[in-house]
Amino acid sequence: MRLSQYFLPVLKETPGDAQVVSHQLMLRAGLIRQTSSGIYAWLPLGLRVLRKIEAIVRAEQDRAGAVELLMPTIQSAELWKESGRFDAYGPEMLRFKDRHGREMLYGPTNEEMITTIFRDGVRSYRDLPRSLYHIQWKFRDEVRPRFGIMRGREFLMKDAYSFDMDAAGGQASYRAMFAAYLKTFARLGLKAVPVRAPTGPIGGDLSHEFHILADTGESEVFYDAALEDIDLNDADATERLTAIYAMEAEEHAKVVDCPVPADRLRSRRGIEVGHIFFFGTKYTEALGMSVQGPDGVNVHPQMGSYGIGVSRLMGAIIEASHDKDGIVWPDAVAPYQVALINLRADDTACKTAADALYDQLTAAGVEVLYDDRDERGGAKFATADLIGLPWQLVIGPKGVAAGTVELKRRGAAARDELSVEAALARLIA
Amino acid sequence: MRLSQYFLPVLKETPGDAQVVSHQLMLRAGLIRQTSSGIYAWLPLGLRVLRKIEAIVRAEQDRAGAVELLMPTIQSAELWKESGRFDAYGPEMLRFKDRHGREMLYGPTNEEMITTIFRDGVRSYRDLPRSLYHIQWKFRDEVRPRFGIMRGREFLMKDAYSFDMDAAGGQASYRAMFAAYLKTFARLGLKAVPVRAPTGPIGGDLSHEFHILADTGESEVFYDAALEDIDLNDADATERLTAIYAMEAEEHAKVVDCPVPADRLRSRRGIEVGHIFFFGTKYTEALGMSVQGPDGVNVHPQMGSYGIGVSRLMGAIIEASHDKDGIVWPDAVAPYQVALINLRADDTACKTAADALYDQLTAAGVEVLYDDRDERGGAKFATADLIGLPWQLVIGPKGVAAGTVELKRRGAAARDELSVEAALARLIA
Repeated sequence: MRLSQYFLPVLKETPGDAQVVSHQLMLRAGLIRQTSSGIYAWLPLGLRVLRKIEAIVRAEQDRAGAVELLMPTIQSAELWKESGRFDAYGPEMLRFKDRHGREMLYGPTNEEMITTIFRDGVRSYRDLPRSLYHIQWKFRDEVRPRFGIMRGREFLMKDAYSFDMDAAGGQASYRAMFAAYLKTFARLGLKAVPVRAPTGPIGGDLSHEFHILADTGESEVFYDAALEDIDLNDADATERLTAIYAMEAEEHAKVVDCPVPADRLRSRRGIEVGHIFFFGTKYTEALGMSVQGPDGVNVHPQMGSYGIGVSRLMGAIIEASHDKDGIVWPDAVAPYQVALINLRADDTACKTAADALYDQLTAAGVEVLYDDRDERGGAKFATADLIGLPWQLVIGPKGVAAGTVELKRRGAAARDELSVEAALARLIA
Repeated sequence: MRLSQYFLPVLKETPGDAQVVSHQLMLRAGLIRQTSSGIYAWLPLGLRVLRKIEAIVRAEQDRAGAVELLMPTIQSAELWKESGRFDAYGPEMLRFKDRHGREMLYGPTNEEMITTIFRDGVRSYRDLPRSLYHIQWKFRDEVRPRFGIMRGREFLMKDAYSFDMDAAGGQASYRAMFAAYLKTFARLGLKAVPVRAPTGPIGGDLSHEFHILADTGESEVFYDAALEDIDLNDADATERLTAIYAMEAEEHAKVVDCPVPADRLRSRRGIEVGHIFFFGTKYTEALGMSVQGPDGVNVHPQMGSYGIGVSRLMGAIIEASHDKDGIVWPDAVAPYQVALINLRADDTACKTAADALYDQLTAAGVEVLYDDRDERGGAKFATADLIGLPWQLVIGPKGVAAGTVELKRRGAAARDELSVEAALARLIA
């Protein structure tokens, strides 16, 4: 993409109302723009990152055997009255009436709806176990939206739901999704700590939250230092991680005899990016969902639900990966891989060389954002650092005369001067 | 995907409340499920089709130089009061108050929001022309939702917006988007008729609707038969199509002297799937958007807006492409390319052969829906016809003994018996 034909409104000043660094950088780098309190538009560069995070979340859900569908944003209040949650949910739920006076709501989560969809679509135990998920916009009417998209009102969430014939099966589905979450966060370049959680308004008896460690995190987590030594590639990683001591501060404070010796107890700030629940037959009973078992007897399936804050993850990644000049995107979610900078857009030789590199890289499938604007070099470097693409490829008059380009890894101090061929070889992997 | 691990709740009976064939088939084939009046969940198979349609729409927007972003579903009423449309829009607009009593709405379209986003992001004529688009869920509170997703309340729309420095530029952007629409519908396997339209609540002075010809269409269009002879590949196709006589019935009735000779005037039913507008400075003036021109004078940019009903297109495609047994998907939007049918899931040789074919096709990148369930052959054929994948590849005991499989093109009468190698060669293009 040529920057001269793009829409990248970067800001020089840090907006005064942005408190945390991810919010500041997302505004400054032209990733988002607030349109109402706690509601944001995703500008072109931000949307690309969002789609990349979403694709990784989707791939790991698919790999775990979950099947994707898509439920609507607007739900009927009737469903929530059947489950008993309409009154319980509180003012975070955005409620309204349609033109016929029917009570509706903007879905904050989908346990009720998925239960009725699955109920109407299956008949026998042979249709189970099954996990279904969707990635859809949700709305929670936060009383004080803050930290940009980290605690906004309209946000993108992946929510999955598992249905099993018995509790043992349900717990196996829970562990499979637990493992999928660890893989997802690892692929995003994040270190996630799973902490044992109370079940809250979703209900049930088993729950974990996943927190990304970051100094600016809203929550505080306490955990056994042994957790840091668990290799996710080990076959028993999930078993060990579900068993190890890890709690959010509020829950930790309630523990009378903490089993972790003081010298092994760690306390760090965290950002909650995922939350999973196993709640048995709570919704299948309330909504009258049953299937015939192998013995002919009807059974209420055992359910779990599994959320990931897809849009919030972008904030968490930036909190975990930035420096004083801007964002440092992990390769897996970078909106483009290469910032191609032509230092002299008014120079024919530079323009010819930069155009050729752009065409070659693009043809090879490398995602390039090409700064072909007629701007000063300093402004171009500042923009490239701010938006944080993994590579900066710089074309200038001296290099063009000598047949060389400069290549720099974002975050690294040194810039390598090398031949065009060597640069292309490094970027086309 | 193995059907034994999928979620495809097909219906044997046609639901009584579904009047048009696309609605009936979408319910029967397990593509959608109604969750409230005029609001639908997209089941796994339907979501795949929706994503394919969306990808084609996106590709043609990108090719036309439009830049993708994503605006939120919920908007502040303030914006609409500034433009004067809040009161004008009528009860189709879903309005409500948030927990702080602020007036909000679920966006039915985005002229106001995009104008403020673009206003805040650009400064000079050098940032124009620019077209921006997004593909987002919209809500229109139809008084009588009907025809399934064709006239539902929550629907997926692509809406693009162009900004130009002068009217000539704005009209050029309009014509470029007009051409992109023709390409989009052609890639979807659809014959679209562009008709001259009144501008209505969007405002402005130039507008076209795009109608897909289908006997079950809600609208009636009158057009010059010469329209059918225009080749989209011709350089002057857009010019000729914008000039030719084509009107919806209501507008046609107002025409006193129709310029088309009676023997060339055609009348057909149509489904409106796209609508484009050029309205000049209506919103840029109302919302105070201006940029500095080359001469230092501030100018209100000229705008157009361009909508495609992405979810409605699925209904239009089915109306245009089905037979008595079910849907006949065009290859470009088929949820999977091949229905692999094992007639005897209980037979080891059949299972081994079908599993091997599934693995080979999948490894080659062919999208296969593998009916590995323990069901009768008749039920499997009926499901395959109903869901309408382009190819049916059938494995049975006689063929396995003889080293052959049967391959059939959906909609064709004949089934070819051929070797496994020949079948693979035909499917792996």
